[in-house]
Amino acid sequence: MKHNHPFSIEASNLTSDKIVLTNRENHHNNTIVSIGPYTIGGQGIAIIAGPCSVENREQITSIARGVKQSGAHLLRGGAYKPRTSPYDFQGLKEEGLLLLQETREITGMPIVTEVITPAQVDIVAHYADVLQIGARNMQNYELLKEVGQVNKPVLLKRGISATIEEFLLAAEYIMHAGNDQVILCERGIRTFEPFTRNTLDLSAVALIKQMSHLPIIVDPSHATGRKDIVIPLVKAAIAVGADGIMVEVHHQPDLALSDGSQSITLEMFAEMMDEVTKIAHTIGRTPHQFINEM
Amino acid sequence: MKHNHPFSIEASNLTSDKIVLTNRENHHNNTIVSIGPYTIGGQGIAIIAGPCSVENREQITSIARGVKQSGAHLLRGGAYKPRTSPYDFQGLKEEGLLLLQETREITGMPIVTEVITPAQVDIVAHYADVLQIGARNMQNYELLKEVGQVNKPVLLKRGISATIEEFLLAAEYIMHAGNDQVILCERGIRTFEPFTRNTLDLSAVALIKQMSHLPIIVDPSHATGRKDIVIPLVKAAIAVGADGIMVEVHHQPDLALSDGSQSITLEMFAEMMDEVTKIAHTIGRTPHQFINEM
Amino acid sequence: MKHNHPFSIEASNLTSDKIVLTNRENHHNNTIVSIGPYTIGGQGIAIIAGPCSVENREQITSIARGVKQSGAHLLRGGAYKPRTSPYDFQGLKEEGLLLLQETREITGMPIVTEVITPAQVDIVAHYADVLQIGARNMQNYELLKEVGQVNKPVLLKRGISATIEEFLLAAEYIMHAGNDQVILCERGIRTFEPFTRNTLDLSAVALIKQMSHLPIIVDPSHATGRKDIVIPLVKAAIAVGADGIMVEVHHQPDLALSDGSQSITLEMFAEMMDEVTKIAHTIGRTPHQFINEM
Amino acid sequence: MKHNHPFSIEASNLTSDKIVLTNRENHHNNTIVSIGPYTIGGQGIAIIAGPCSVENREQITSIARGVKQSGAHLLRGGAYKPRTSPYDFQGLKEEGLLLLQETREITGMPIVTEVITPAQVDIVAHYADVLQIGARNMQNYELLKEVGQVNKPVLLKRGISATIEEFLLAAEYIMHAGNDQVILCERGIRTFEPFTRNTLDLSAVALIKQMSHLPIIVDPSHATGRKDIVIPLVKAAIAVGADGIMVEVHHQPDLALSDGSQSITLEMFAEMMDEVTKIAHTIGRTPHQFINEM
Repeated sequence: MKHNHPFSIEASNLTSDKIVLTNRENHHNNTIVSIGPYTIGGQGIAIIAGPCSVENREQITSIARGVKQSGAHLLRGGAYKPRTSPYDFQGLKEEGLLLLQETREITGMPIVTEVITPAQVDIVAHYADVLQIGARNMQNYELLKEVGQVNKPVLLKRGISATIEEFLLAAEYIMHAGNDQVILCERGIRTFEPFTRNTLDLSAVALIKQMSHLPIIVDPSHATGRKDIVIPLVKAAIAVGADGIMVEVHHQPDLALSDGSQSITLEMFAEMMDEVTKIAHTIGRTPHQFINEM
Repeated sequence: MKHNHPFSIEASNLTSDKIVLTNRENHHNNTIVSIGPYTIGGQGIAIIAGPCSVENREQITSIARGVKQSGAHLLRGGAYKPRTSPYDFQGLKEEGLLLLQETREITGMPIVTEVITPAQVDIVAHYADVLQIGARNMQNYELLKEVGQVNKPVLLKRGISATIEEFLLAAEYIMHAGNDQVILCERGIRTFEPFTRNTLDLSAVALIKQMSHLPIIVDPSHATGRKDIVIPLVKAAIAVGADGIMVEVHHQPDLALSDGSQSITLEMFAEMMDEVTKIAHTIGRTPHQFINEM
Repeated sequence: MKHNHPFSIEASNLTSDKIVLTNRENHHNNTIVSIGPYTIGGQGIAIIAGPCSVENREQITSIARGVKQSGAHLLRGGAYKPRTSPYDFQGLKEEGLLLLQETREITGMPIVTEVITPAQVDIVAHYADVLQIGARNMQNYELLKEVGQVNKPVLLKRGISATIEEFLLAAEYIMHAGNDQVILCERGIRTFEPFTRNTLDLSAVALIKQMSHLPIIVDPSHATGRKDIVIPLVKAAIAVGADGIMVEVHHQPDLALSDGSQSITLEMFAEMMDEVTKIAHTIGRTPHQFINEM
Repeated sequence: MKHNHPFSIEASNLTSDKIVLTNRENHHNNTIVSIGPYTIGGQGIAIIAGPCSVENREQITSIARGVKQSGAHLLRGGAYKPRTSPYDFQGLKEEGLLLLQETREITGMPIVTEVITPAQVDIVAHYADVLQIGARNMQNYELLKEVGQVNKPVLLKRGISATIEEFLLAAEYIMHAGNDQVILCERGIRTFEPFTRNTLDLSAVALIKQMSHLPIIVDPSHATGRKDIVIPLVKAAIAVGADGIMVEVHHQPDLALSDGSQSITLEMFAEMMDEVTKIAHTIGRTPHQFINEM
């Protein structure tokens, strides 16, 4: 009879020997990523807000103005949408990128948008300030290598069934290809619980802050799939130590072409920002430092 | 071809028609449970601390004095231990209950301890101030019915693979048997992630505060299985709206007979209480109200 | 940087040093459990069939006669039902046991029925030939210890989120208490897949046949929650090496008081038995040996 | 109080209205995919065998000859390898494709090999007979669209946390782009069980045979991660109705550059083929029909 236990908490505490470039043991200070006038990973809390998809000019500029007024720093919005069904709205594509560019000119907000395949990296990098890798592509290694060769920050979302180790190894691919401006994003993992779309894993945020020097933000919209608990989870995310929040906001959620049920309104976003400010101050962080620096 | 989608987020928002007594729609105000001089479910944040198991007089009194000094309200400690293996330490049983009683006399702290089978309900209720139903017994319905007939508060832990609906239905069993003093406890759910023992589900706390009038607390020790992230998760739990925290503390974790790797030290507990106080004030709650009321 | 990998397949191959009495390394030959004229764990394939709940005399006798005619060996039927909601049908209790006893007298079929709390072990053992421990009670250790002291076989179902190691350790509790007539039952584990109620884990059957000397059977009804795939999964279970099948059968599934959607009809059961016979012969097992021995 | 149940088995039985081209309701007969002299989806059982990665000429030709001798039809082998870590062996790339081509010329076995990014589709399609989409790329929609425009069969593996509905919708992408030669492959889903790498979901095979006209095969090697239970699971897969098996075989598993612990030896493969033959005959399928047709 063998005497080794097949799984023990001691074993789970060990980090993989493959986690090198992303490992805090090899890079003690926090990585701070700069995006226009803002930074992620320092004292401030970065707020990224916007709709799931760019739908039209009126929609994206209304939402951008609304969230900026309440203190958002970066604008999110999807132009290329990876959708579960081929019959769902697939995004406005390059037209969406142009609308995002226009909105940046109007509002001054840097743009975060998703790139879903290597051949689009150049065009998305031309328009965007931050390239987002979505959860479904976290292990699309050719895409990771490609964004690893771009001189723009990359926002890497955790796969819905990725372990923390796999998540850090995906970031390792990007850094190994030459890009050290990586922002991690916890966005929920797939579990058996049906009342939420996924289960937000805030333990992962606490652990990753210990294990890695990379900034990590939290997306409560995709994690829960329901707007009614976004605000309490944003508060929890700030309290646990996240470096920022990415949240879906729509000026008319009931009319959204995608993800309406999880998008908060502009009024809820303003309320959310009040809460972020309070919690951030409590834990010694500066919620709105960026605005003042502009 | 049928046109109904097999699962949609809209469907998941609906509550079960079987959730009656625990449902906030039928009882709008928060239930406030009284335990000696303390309450759970009102403005205050209840702190329950202590070792996994009662091991001996010196151990339980040292830990109780230590946590009380930092502001803990209730003392936890297991006398009857449900262990995965028959060869693991099974608890001191009635001797453990006697040591808990002694410790209450010395410190004035009410006692929370687990009952694992219907035949023990009377004896545990004789010594304890709160009867704990552990995660493994959340669907031990005969035990739920039995504690439902006792005039003492019941702390019901979520099963490691229980949905939120199943969790509320387990509380429904206790209330249906006549006991409305039920405190819920989120303690992590089983997922694929190996770096933590379970995955703490703070979305469940936010949802249950909406769906039910019952108080809900959070146990970060069992959820994570590792002491190094207990404090950030406690901060997150308070921020998300939990009514209290239950945490494992040991004066000498390395010598603990069970759960040493997840028990925080008395020094860490003092630090934790400072953080709880700050976050609680920020969100308009009174962290230490109980102490002043004594 | 530490060099141990947090999880590896090598580690997972190791068995726990706590698995002693159930471990094949300490007991090379298969345990063969005798139940009336039948055995489980030898060359034969044991078929246990019947309704979820005993509902009335006509129902249980009709089903028993029907399944016996097609070759079933043991009759299953719940008298004490552990139900998720207190408002669901909880079983006929002792009246159900009496009806099972009557049905055994009429048909000669030994009875498998569930016991859900220690205080009922004596009465259930008085009427039943096999005591079933349901999935929700797999870690109800006081119940395991109690059935461990009875001189009747115990059918232990895997918990819906129990690992294989935890499953074997639950059996270890029963054997450690003195009862070595333990039959394991794989009945699906909880996963994210919504099209089936749980996910039948036939890998566990293959592994447990290697790791343990105890017989293991498969319950496809609870695993899938849908009658339309019971027959193919029964074929797979026999092919993978299961020692038997436990299946829910109802003469009028649409009228069943519980679990109607997963109960197969008597006609489907007859078809199932034909398939069992073919596969069993193919793999060198004797599907109906018991009948001939009567 | 609302009266809709948040999740019910009735709901889960319904198919999505987005499943159109892959839906059996719209295409009653089984799709039969032709590959050289073989077919998948008809009466025969297709056997695809070979190493995880092509390592060198001697390795791939030895394994190909070995598996062909025991009755394998198609040769699998990875040239482009998606690996969790950037520091792991990434495959021989085009050199690997050339070695596969050579091996086909020697043995006559058609080649199944993975394509991991849209830009490689042309070159892989030039060398391969079947393009494999790996589990990590099941929702890499740009890749699905690209292989949807190629006139070669596509073997689509289920993502490790993909629901059955998502799996069919991924196939829908390929068919929607114009390619109806799609072979599905169940290869295990991620669960909490640590004794196996993933949990093989044979219920999904039974369900997909009902819901879709596409052929579905089973890969027990990736599902379990351990060679010791490959053979019983192959037997179960045939019994449940799979149209084929894809299995990792290595002539020297201990020296394999990847996945050695799950690769069976040539001797085990020969034994496996004997078992496949027996079970296939039992259920009225023709295990080796292809060989005779050559």
